[in-house]
Amino acid sequence: MHKGRLEAFSDGVIAIIITIMVLEFKVPHEPSLSALLNLWPIFISYILSFIYVGIYWNNHHHMLQATTKISGGILWANLHLLFWLSLIPFSTAWMGENHFADGPVAVYGVVLFMCAVAYIILQNRLIKHHGNESVLAKAIGSDRKGKISMLCYVSGIALSHVSPWISSALYVFVALMWLIPDRRIEDAV
Amino acid sequence: MHKGRLEAFSDGVIAIIITIMVLEFKVPHEPSLSALLNLWPIFISYILSFIYVGIYWNNHHHMLQATTKISGGILWANLHLLFWLSLIPFSTAWMGENHFADGPVAVYGVVLFMCAVAYIILQNRLIKHHGNESVLAKAIGSDRKGKISMLCYVSGIALSHVSPWISSALYVFVALMWLIPDRRIEDAV
Amino acid sequence: MHKGRLEAFSDGVIAIIITIMVLEFKVPHEPSLSALLNLWPIFISYILSFIYVGIYWNNHHHMLQATTKISGGILWANLHLLFWLSLIPFSTAWMGENHFADGPVAVYGVVLFMCAVAYIILQNRLIKHHGNESVLAKAIGSDRKGKISMLCYVSGIALSHVSPWISSALYVFVALMWLIPDRRIEDAV
Amino acid sequence: MHKGRLEAFSDGVIAIIITIMVLEFKVPHEPSLSALLNLWPIFISYILSFIYVGIYWNNHHHMLQATTKISGGILWANLHLLFWLSLIPFSTAWMGENHFADGPVAVYGVVLFMCAVAYIILQNRLIKHHGNESVLAKAIGSDRKGKISMLCYVSGIALSHVSPWISSALYVFVALMWLIPDRRIEDAV
Repeated sequence: MHKGRLEAFSDGVIAIIITIMVLEFKVPHEPSLSALLNLWPIFISYILSFIYVGIYWNNHHHMLQATTKISGGILWANLHLLFWLSLIPFSTAWMGENHFADGPVAVYGVVLFMCAVAYIILQNRLIKHHGNESVLAKAIGSDRKGKISMLCYVSGIALSHVSPWISSALYVFVALMWLIPDRRIEDAV
Repeated sequence: MHKGRLEAFSDGVIAIIITIMVLEFKVPHEPSLSALLNLWPIFISYILSFIYVGIYWNNHHHMLQATTKISGGILWANLHLLFWLSLIPFSTAWMGENHFADGPVAVYGVVLFMCAVAYIILQNRLIKHHGNESVLAKAIGSDRKGKISMLCYVSGIALSHVSPWISSALYVFVALMWLIPDRRIEDAV
Repeated sequence: MHKGRLEAFSDGVIAIIITIMVLEFKVPHEPSLSALLNLWPIFISYILSFIYVGIYWNNHHHMLQATTKISGGILWANLHLLFWLSLIPFSTAWMGENHFADGPVAVYGVVLFMCAVAYIILQNRLIKHHGNESVLAKAIGSDRKGKISMLCYVSGIALSHVSPWISSALYVFVALMWLIPDRRIEDAV
Repeated sequence: MHKGRLEAFSDGVIAIIITIMVLEFKVPHEPSLSALLNLWPIFISYILSFIYVGIYWNNHHHMLQATTKISGGILWANLHLLFWLSLIPFSTAWMGENHFADGPVAVYGVVLFMCAVAYIILQNRLIKHHGNESVLAKAIGSDRKGKISMLCYVSGIALSHVSPWISSALYVFVALMWLIPDRRIEDAV
């Protein structure tokens, strides 16, 4: 089984996810700039989620470049990742429309956490399929960045009641940490 | 005629179908978790349909891998399948918003049934085009799983008046049965 | 310049057009079957447009298979076709929601007519680029079907005031005529 | 790293952007032609934006054809461009619904300006990666058209208070200037 159609389908779904988020950006009825400025929380949450989905696309791209074979289980692990990514537009809109209230900020963290879990499952499946001596396995190594991210998401969820701004800062931190694409694989390849 | 563009177009349509379902997930106006929890029937029906569309993509992927040639009739049999799949977001939303009421549950079953019919038509067209001795024909064999699915859909539609929960359970059962991708073809290839 | 990305982009746009039409299918608020049956004009217009967009995809696919080279002008002729196709979801929804009233039926015909004009422009550009002795030019020949379609659209627009049902019947007739894919090219290739 | 998936993903996102703009085209509730004609500002702004997104796709296509290698930074420069392009449907709808009022016209110009900035960043990244002696660098040359566009956008934004029609005329002028695809690269290749 070759990976071409898996990549094409994932690209399609991720492209749609990253683009439909903008549909939540309801056009204000008045033409005033103040009406536009009122949308800032929606705009900020859109930027953050755009970066997150971009990171997932980048890393997915890198990971599959180091991949040579695919199995039925990998197809489902990939769909499972796409499922959680597909909830990002919803959690983004809910967080933005409610001006980063604690509940939606926690739920935003839960969705990010589940995306990370799904990504790791896919990663492990791929490593298992290619063997521990594969380029892929060596490139990922101890996955320190992945572990730090998980910790930040969990902290963000837990602290959302205390201050949703701390949680949001943690999510921004993770995004910045990943903005540098997954060099580990790039280097190993 | 080669199959590349048929796959690409199908991937595009299926990617959009699986993703726009999430647009039916209207963001609640309040930031409370209880407002979120009220969405559970929509969430459950979203998960079920995501799995169904995923199954169709997986099996479509497998079936076309065993395919070597395409005809005009096959293009239309494929579009016919995409037509019924495109109604899944509608029937999903209707079922979810009405908390699995009997009418929408029956209609959900009708759409699934028609998807299955369309899939079988496409499958038969492909077998006819490749011959009974082809890898494809041998891989599909008696299509026992396909027949059980049809029976479950029909039972689900018929029983929706008695109990929509029995119908829903039947749909879940079919999804679980197919979650294992179409190994018959994978093995034969 | 090679045609791969032109095909990929067109596939993407056409896949989205054919799928977003279903978004106009607003979910009824009641779970009753009568609420569903009230949607019949929207459903009928959806089926008709789905077939039309499918026909355009099929013929586009066939035409580009006979194509070997692309120019800047061809890229724009293609975008021009995609522009008119992109108006089909709008005219479909307007016609369906107004139960095939005369104004929307005429506008639906105008959009189909402009799609046909754009298709012919693209076709002529491609023939000019490949020469009159090319496979493409020979395959298209006198384009009798194209001319009949134009005549039907114009009649449909003109007669919409008299009876929108005659107009609709003409549109259905054209769709049926084209449902058979463009064998001319298939045979010539 | 090869450019195939970058092209595919960009094609997907641009295809969605160009198509979802039509979703802002709300179907009028009455079937009268006057209700349709009331939509003219939305239609005009849709045409303008369709051409702009088409230009970006064309030029992106040309630029990447002259590209042979990709880096992590280029992936992000590309995502940055897609981000600003994704705001075009929003600014288009706001401008159309408010009949080209000064505020929305200025914001439309800001989005176009940022798209141009993002495009130039991507272009510079690509040139840097390929070297000043590359086909790409030579093809782009002094980028005179790019500079004129920037000047027009800035003038459009500045003059929107004086007359949004002058601003709009400037945006139309830029679109017409670019409608001719990027021959520089085509010729050099």
